[in-house]
Amino acid sequence: MTPPSSVPSSGPSSQPSFPPGATLADAGEFGLIEELVRRFPQGEHVLVGPGDDAAVLRVRTGHVVVSTDLMVEGRHFRREWASAADIGHRAAAQNISDVNAMGGRVTSLTIGLAAPADLEVAWALDFAQGFADECALVGASVVGGDLTRADQVVVAVTVMGVCTVAPVLRSGARPGDVLALAGRQGWAAGGLAVLGRGFRSPRVLVEAYRRPEPPYDAGPAAADAGATAMIDVSDGLLAEAGHLARASGVAVDVQRAALDLAEPLQAVGAALGADPLSFVLGGGDDHALLATFPAGADLPEGFTPIGTVGEGSGVTLDGAAYDGPTGWTHF
Amino acid sequence: MTPPSSVPSSGPSSQPSFPPGATLADAGEFGLIEELVRRFPQGEHVLVGPGDDAAVLRVRTGHVVVSTDLMVEGRHFRREWASAADIGHRAAAQNISDVNAMGGRVTSLTIGLAAPADLEVAWALDFAQGFADECALVGASVVGGDLTRADQVVVAVTVMGVCTVAPVLRSGARPGDVLALAGRQGWAAGGLAVLGRGFRSPRVLVEAYRRPEPPYDAGPAAADAGATAMIDVSDGLLAEAGHLARASGVAVDVQRAALDLAEPLQAVGAALGADPLSFVLGGGDDHALLATFPAGADLPEGFTPIGTVGEGSGVTLDGAAYDGPTGWTHF
Repeated sequence: MTPPSSVPSSGPSSQPSFPPGATLADAGEFGLIEELVRRFPQGEHVLVGPGDDAAVLRVRTGHVVVSTDLMVEGRHFRREWASAADIGHRAAAQNISDVNAMGGRVTSLTIGLAAPADLEVAWALDFAQGFADECALVGASVVGGDLTRADQVVVAVTVMGVCTVAPVLRSGARPGDVLALAGRQGWAAGGLAVLGRGFRSPRVLVEAYRRPEPPYDAGPAAADAGATAMIDVSDGLLAEAGHLARASGVAVDVQRAALDLAEPLQAVGAALGADPLSFVLGGGDDHALLATFPAGADLPEGFTPIGTVGEGSGVTLDGAAYDGPTGWTHF
Repeated sequence: MTPPSSVPSSGPSSQPSFPPGATLADAGEFGLIEELVRRFPQGEHVLVGPGDDAAVLRVRTGHVVVSTDLMVEGRHFRREWASAADIGHRAAAQNISDVNAMGGRVTSLTIGLAAPADLEVAWALDFAQGFADECALVGASVVGGDLTRADQVVVAVTVMGVCTVAPVLRSGARPGDVLALAGRQGWAAGGLAVLGRGFRSPRVLVEAYRRPEPPYDAGPAAADAGATAMIDVSDGLLAEAGHLARASGVAVDVQRAALDLAEPLQAVGAALGADPLSFVLGGGDDHALLATFPAGADLPEGFTPIGTVGEGSGVTLDGAAYDGPTGWTHF
């Protein structure tokens, strides 16, 4: 097989080609795609990048991990609550996190953007730049995409990655395992609560919502350390613990004292009259990792024990049912 | 690496779990996803199918071909013009066609469905069944997806495939090559024109629009036969010829006499007062393949010569510019 020639990398244009305030309708599809693609440098594994009927990737391992997510304006993000670059970072982060939760590392992403014709070109380009910058954190390339008109902004991302050891599924937890958490948890939910009331501080929480910082090294580290099950927290901590318990056929108990109720969460709880614990138990936008390890295993860096796995089914908090808000439903 | 256990195949439920008229909001996310996933049997290459953070695929070759597409209700399809199953077939077909145009064969797809909460469950399930049935034509599996609420139906598909010989790019056409076409061309555009006037016949054209039949074997056959460039016709024949000419740095001439103005196209042209040639030159929903081959090459089965490649740039019809409608723009 003769590989096609590689696509040269190119950085973003420092001189925007579109006048200020230009919309997608003004720009036209092909000129805009050219500008978008300039923001997506291609890694060495990309034999053919954006611009043909399909991208062509060199895959070094025999196993590929794949996931896909939709983000809809007004439901998963609001343009008035975060910059276009922030939303780009978030769209990439939540998808990279799905591969992280398998213990994999992301190599390639595709991105579909549906948007109203009056969306400003600057928004689309800044979104793409934020998306590309988040991908660069893990060395991944945006290898393809699609752009079309719709009534509201919809972002569709597919992520591909590789695992160097066996992927860590949701279904491997066993009674006696330790439940552990990596990454901030509840901060983004606190930030979202603040924004929902029309405030902009504490800034650290608002920023945690706008631009999450998933623990990207923790997923492969957990796989290497022998994690028995793993899931990323996108629907809320207790909800995800429930998904893991159900898939594994076990019961999970979360220990309240082990959860970190950081000072900004307590401050927001007090200001909004909310239990800060509800952000930690119900929040999903930080993309923390929840994993189980055999008892006595050395937890990899970044993981803190927060509970136990037992016989039975369901999720408890300190051995009892929790009746607060526990997460996100899509319909 | 210990591969996780395979996902068992399962056919669609013969007993729907939802009452007639139930909406997505009635069904709830997780029950609906379970029903959707039952419609997607998993091939042997799928080590982990839908239900975890990501799917895990075994990839036998070192090269993977990837493409992504969005379909938006009111823009790419209308629910009143085609059944849910038809729209599912079309969504799969247009994505499989992108891999076909590289000379590859599809192994795996992901599908994202954003839809209003009042969409009927039956629509989503029939859509999924049509999508699955089209994938089955090429032996591909739907390995993952996402489901969320939006104001209008948006379908986001990503397709992955493999090439057993070098992928055929848009950029390899050389002066002296023969331009050839595989598959029906213009039929879907004729059907769409009929539907747009409120008619339902000729049925053969309406069906061609509702459920295209791309020439799936022609892509790999062209690659095997040494095609120098290939593209799938989704933006219109002349428009795609233009993309190919530009990417290859050549001029393309299409010979009018070589184009098949089938009887139903002539009938519709007469009835609507349209030049039937405009359907053939401007239509894009059949997903025909346009390819170039070295002069004197034996064209693979299904391909008909329709023109020539020369020095220069641009596309001509019988050596002259064509001033009719030539295709589709996205903004």
